Amino acid sequence: MKRDIDQLMAERQLDAIVIEGPDGLTSANAAWRYMVNGAELTGLVIKRRNSPEQLIYHAMERLQAEETGLELVPFSRWDYPAIVKRFPDRLDATVELRRQMFNDLGVHGRVGVYGTMQANELLALAGALQQALPEVQLVGEFDRDVINEARKTKDEAELERMADVGRRTCAVVQTVVDFIRAQRAANGQVVDAQGKPVTIGMIHALIRQALDRENLEAPMGTIFAQGRDAGIPHATGELDAPLLLGEAIVFDIYPRDRASGYYHDMTRTFAIGYAAPGLQELYDDVKESFDQVVAALKPGVSTHGLQQRACQVLRERDHQTPEDTWPLEEGYIHSLGHGIGLDVHEPLAMSTFVDQGDTVEPGTVFTIEPGLYYPSRNMGVRIEDTICCAPDGTIRSLTPFPYDLVIPIGQ
Amino acid sequence: MKRDIDQLMAERQLDAIVIEGPDGLTSANAAWRYMVNGAELTGLVIKRRNSPEQLIYHAMERLQAEETGLELVPFSRWDYPAIVKRFPDRLDATVELRRQMFNDLGVHGRVGVYGTMQANELLALAGALQQALPEVQLVGEFDRDVINEARKTKDEAELERMADVGRRTCAVVQTVVDFIRAQRAANGQVVDAQGKPVTIGMIHALIRQALDRENLEAPMGTIFAQGRDAGIPHATGELDAPLLLGEAIVFDIYPRDRASGYYHDMTRTFAIGYAAPGLQELYDDVKESFDQVVAALKPGVSTHGLQQRACQVLRERDHQTPEDTWPLEEGYIHSLGHGIGLDVHEPLAMSTFVDQGDTVEPGTVFTIEPGLYYPSRNMGVRIEDTICCAPDGTIRSLTPFPYDLVIPIGQ
Repeated sequence: MKRDIDQLMAERQLDAIVIEGPDGLTSANAAWRYMVNGAELTGLVIKRRNSPEQLIYHAMERLQAEETGLELVPFSRWDYPAIVKRFPDRLDATVELRRQMFNDLGVHGRVGVYGTMQANELLALAGALQQALPEVQLVGEFDRDVINEARKTKDEAELERMADVGRRTCAVVQTVVDFIRAQRAANGQVVDAQGKPVTIGMIHALIRQALDRENLEAPMGTIFAQGRDAGIPHATGELDAPLLLGEAIVFDIYPRDRASGYYHDMTRTFAIGYAAPGLQELYDDVKESFDQVVAALKPGVSTHGLQQRACQVLRERDHQTPEDTWPLEEGYIHSLGHGIGLDVHEPLAMSTFVDQGDTVEPGTVFTIEPGLYYPSRNMGVRIEDTICCAPDGTIRSLTPFPYDLVIPIGQ
Repeated sequence: MKRDIDQLMAERQLDAIVIEGPDGLTSANAAWRYMVNGAELTGLVIKRRNSPEQLIYHAMERLQAEETGLELVPFSRWDYPAIVKRFPDRLDATVELRRQMFNDLGVHGRVGVYGTMQANELLALAGALQQALPEVQLVGEFDRDVINEARKTKDEAELERMADVGRRTCAVVQTVVDFIRAQRAANGQVVDAQGKPVTIGMIHALIRQALDRENLEAPMGTIFAQGRDAGIPHATGELDAPLLLGEAIVFDIYPRDRASGYYHDMTRTFAIGYAAPGLQELYDDVKESFDQVVAALKPGVSTHGLQQRACQVLRERDHQTPEDTWPLEEGYIHSLGHGIGLDVHEPLAMSTFVDQGDTVEPGTVFTIEPGLYYPSRNMGVRIEDTICCAPDGTIRSLTPFPYDLVIPIGQ
């Protein structure tokens, strides 16, 4: 949680942290969005240990800056026109501006740098700053960095927001299911009242409209893939293809709340009218692993151990798992889930190959999403809920949606 | 253009370039999207000078990898499970994986790094790589980096795509104008057929629907701001406020094509029914500066000089400009425009304070967007087209939309 940041900085002996909010990336820059409390603006957040965050903002964005609730420092505190006259080279000017900022705001010692940036710019700037400012040591953190560690446990307000995003995402999925039920079956396809085939592209358009009505957006897209595509985890689906009866349809939706920036992530596998031979069995295997993993969730449990359990259930049912072979073309070919919040994929690893030491803890929010993929049989199944461990340690799915495989449809 | 990359690498004495495509950022990672020809996937592109680009991709994304047309190298060429067993620390494992990749693909010498990344991860990884691989020198580029320089001039296919995105963006703006014209005026407000006020939130919903129909998305939002908000360049507009007659409305729309990733950027200023006192004069001043700048466009012209010309026109008409005072609260308070492509803001600077040496050249695409802002008078005006300099040097607006201030409306 955000209130842990000073403690996390102390553990890493960081004297200050700088969070970069460059142009063009605000919503793809989760560390930044976290620190500015969801506001949409560019700038720089600077925090010295045990001091409040300071937001350096541009005059053009002063309304957004006021929304953040942070201590405000306008960029115009520094005389940039004078700096660029003295330093015509843009890198030199940027270094001089940073030098003055760090000096005036008391930033020195070990300084962690966070936020999303252009790699080429950051490497050049960090190198030049390091030379120009001997009193500052820029620190990179690869794993368990201050911001991601703070983000890993959500506070009550974040959990409430994420539960709400979950309910609205389920409403979108329900809209799609209701639409399909209201169509007809003909010649192995789903057709509308006029007998025209319903295509995957039409479903995608319906999904986007339903997302918009719920004030959600899908910056990473949506997967609605059937048949062979369902057997490839990240295939997004052929838009012109008609919706077929009986085929496996993997519907994986991971939208972001337009207001708060928080993501939800859920997957249901459907078959329209009936399930093709073998699909129900595959579905039952995935559901069994899902249920066993969910039943094992509690504070302190190792997420690496959860992946091992999922592999065990699926191996006992004669599927290949990444514990056995790698890379896999068919079977259970990915890991069990991931943390989720202002990014759709956040730390809280559930990897197969190594125990990274992550555990379920109060405040963590993560997906559980076992799956089985058989492109050679034109099928795949994935079941996924976003799940939270509440502050009191109880486990709660944020995805209140049934797990029925078959969507009934009339002739 | 992409075919310039080898030459740009030679000028910078770069032996190889690495473009990072991390998870969660694909569409916000323009350098990556450029190199993978618009495909949506994660991975790594490596290019040695005078050799073809190689795409290192994950098996789960092989369909998307095939779309790129690049030479394909699966991640599974390297035995990651064995690496993580030897190097349980994730940074150590990543360094070892990179070491093997660079070795096997012949990457050494001066290596430029590009793409959007988490600052903390990149600093840690670059530092560790530098220690582990003495035969590699990672190079940061702050300004005029290889990828941005290549992107600065568009080829014919890119220009055709951007012209198409412009036409579709204009269709969205036309939809909004047509909607407003079809409403009624009552008590100083715009009301619908039932007499209910039309709100700014309703206009935003209409914009989103129209964007979706045109296969466009607005990841950076849309500005539709009236009155005092119109006087603040980056205010996005109060959703609950009713649409008022006579007030300045700044409508700035900068959508991205869902298929190709290319942006368009245009602004029109409107007043519904009539223009409030003084607004037409303000509009005429902005239009005069817009027209004079556009008339001055030709290959070789300095973009810094264009900003100077815009300032001169507006100063002669008694407005403050950034050449006179900085920071400015009112008047012409920003720069003239920016390059545009796979990012809404790309290099091709038009800054006030220093001549960065940019010129209009065949293949460049950029916005021209002078504006005047008087929040104390509850008004602001901006006029913006996306403009290209064609390969034959002719100047062409990609924003075929009229410049009328007043939208007529019935009682």
